Amino acid sequence: MDLVDGILKADSRSMARALSIIESGGHQAQEILKGIFSKTGRGVVVGVTGPPGSGKSTLVDKLAQAYRKQSKSVGIVAVDPTSPFTGGALLGDRIRMESVSLDPHVFIRSMATRGAHGGLATTTEEVADLLEAFGFQRIIVETVGVGQTELDIARTAETTVLVLVPESGDGIQTLKAGVMEIADLYVVNKSDRLGADKLRQEVEVMLGIRRGNAFRHVAPHHRSDSRTVGQSDRKRLQPDGPAVRPSEPWEPPVLGTVASTGQGVDELAEALDRHHVYLEASGQLVERRRRRLAARTRAVLERGVQRWLVEATRAEELLRQRLDEVTDGRRSPYDVAAEILDQVKTGVAR
Amino acid sequence: MDLVDGILKADSRSMARALSIIESGGHQAQEILKGIFSKTGRGVVVGVTGPPGSGKSTLVDKLAQAYRKQSKSVGIVAVDPTSPFTGGALLGDRIRMESVSLDPHVFIRSMATRGAHGGLATTTEEVADLLEAFGFQRIIVETVGVGQTELDIARTAETTVLVLVPESGDGIQTLKAGVMEIADLYVVNKSDRLGADKLRQEVEVMLGIRRGNAFRHVAPHHRSDSRTVGQSDRKRLQPDGPAVRPSEPWEPPVLGTVASTGQGVDELAEALDRHHVYLEASGQLVERRRRRLAARTRAVLERGVQRWLVEATRAEELLRQRLDEVTDGRRSPYDVAAEILDQVKTGVAR
Repeated sequence: MDLVDGILKADSRSMARALSIIESGGHQAQEILKGIFSKTGRGVVVGVTGPPGSGKSTLVDKLAQAYRKQSKSVGIVAVDPTSPFTGGALLGDRIRMESVSLDPHVFIRSMATRGAHGGLATTTEEVADLLEAFGFQRIIVETVGVGQTELDIARTAETTVLVLVPESGDGIQTLKAGVMEIADLYVVNKSDRLGADKLRQEVEVMLGIRRGNAFRHVAPHHRSDSRTVGQSDRKRLQPDGPAVRPSEPWEPPVLGTVASTGQGVDELAEALDRHHVYLEASGQLVERRRRRLAARTRAVLERGVQRWLVEATRAEELLRQRLDEVTDGRRSPYDVAAEILDQVKTGVAR
Repeated sequence: MDLVDGILKADSRSMARALSIIESGGHQAQEILKGIFSKTGRGVVVGVTGPPGSGKSTLVDKLAQAYRKQSKSVGIVAVDPTSPFTGGALLGDRIRMESVSLDPHVFIRSMATRGAHGGLATTTEEVADLLEAFGFQRIIVETVGVGQTELDIARTAETTVLVLVPESGDGIQTLKAGVMEIADLYVVNKSDRLGADKLRQEVEVMLGIRRGNAFRHVAPHHRSDSRTVGQSDRKRLQPDGPAVRPSEPWEPPVLGTVASTGQGVDELAEALDRHHVYLEASGQLVERRRRRLAARTRAVLERGVQRWLVEATRAEELLRQRLDEVTDGRRSPYDVAAEILDQVKTGVAR
């Protein structure tokens, strides 16, 4: 298949076309994804999530620059609810990313969530696959927001980073617990601001509670009111810092960054690499990939069954016929769904 | 069925049991939902959403009190990602709600998003159905967060309220456009704070852009720097305020509230009632209900097909058998899904 060849030969035009096809779904998308599948799993996929206004986008920009300094190519997928009439968010992203977007070894794709309800995590993973097959060495998936869909997307990455900022008055209390638990690395961005030390402390206490050891991480230097940052990170993340111990559980580090100046970003890149090494050495990389592929196969199967219901069975026709009865209360959605399912099962509806 | 009878007779214990059953899904849930279906569609369902820290919960609390002053019973469903180990978010809600939770005519249910991936909007709607069948006159669905799932949930309500606060430095820019478009009413909460007027102005400009009439709503009184609130709302929402015009599109009002003191909450309740009257008079109430029921029937059918795939076909067994081949790259998820789908279709897998 031409498009698949093009992608594997790193032809940008093929990739741009393939991306559009994959985002809109359908049979051709499946063929492309099937064609490139054996070339996936070669890059490192990092998910970055956090509440609006936490400076994720600037941080992702600077992280891409850090990777470029290491001569690694970078693909960025920004998942972003957008709008046909304002376009504000997307435009903002493109302007923001200019510093890296002129570099031919950095590719940025903004994905609108519109129209992709339900399967957004799967589609995002498929776009990341394409970037891997194309040859990008680092893939950053940035999700805006802290809702369930965003968490599901973040979980499709090998390593998940949660970005927090000290400014939200209520600290981590405004972030629900479900959000706090997903990350492999925590970043307190804008950590030159008042309250950054307190926020880091809170996160570390929370991580301590998770390990059943509440105060382990609240070392005295975290109790100080000093507004200098990065001190403890630099200590912790020096090349001669703590070795990766694959037999022990990963202890999520809490890093401080100032994305606008780039402070702490090299340390973040290093911590991400350490997590990747940990995942590999502990066998979790294979295990996580296996789980993701099982989930993907299930999602593709469900998508296929739904398409089959629409295209090859009379399900939609029956639904339309029965809708009046549901609307005026004569029948319930449950009766109608059961009737259609019966027909699908027995093949009568085919 | 006993439980159904209990619910229709407004027996609290039956409802509590039914709620747990519905949240966990399955066959018994369907039976209950089928049984109560003809008694749904009697209450008014209001969705309240907004970013973390916007004071939604306090506002919902006060709105419930406003309804109680009108002798209306109120059911509240708070959808909230939570955690088995901290429980923080839920506990917070319960304490917060104490002022209304001692009232027997107010019922509060916190729903965890955990385990309900993918079908959360449907489950939330089903819980709201149960509260309607029980006899609650007003049902408030509160979602925490501004992600895709939260939007999907908010859209299941008849009337959607988006709560914003002036404190997020970047105003509505931090909220993505997709979020801004869903609401029937906008509330600037904490509107005694600096920046509230500016935020209201921004929202009204945005709503003007949506109507192709950018500056229509930026009346001079919005340009003032005065920090008093509610002035324009009171004018707009007086009983002798603008009549509901069912033949014209609804123009979403932008209201100011101070939830902590209750300021502006009666006006919000009134605006909600006006929107309900508008929906009824314009025929949109029936139309929206019809669309929701079609979507619900589809969701129930999809759920049924998925359950059938798991229980009655060899789909899961085949998936397990093929997973090794997928993991080591010999086959793609797309090949395997296609194989299983073929077997389901031809009945071989049954």
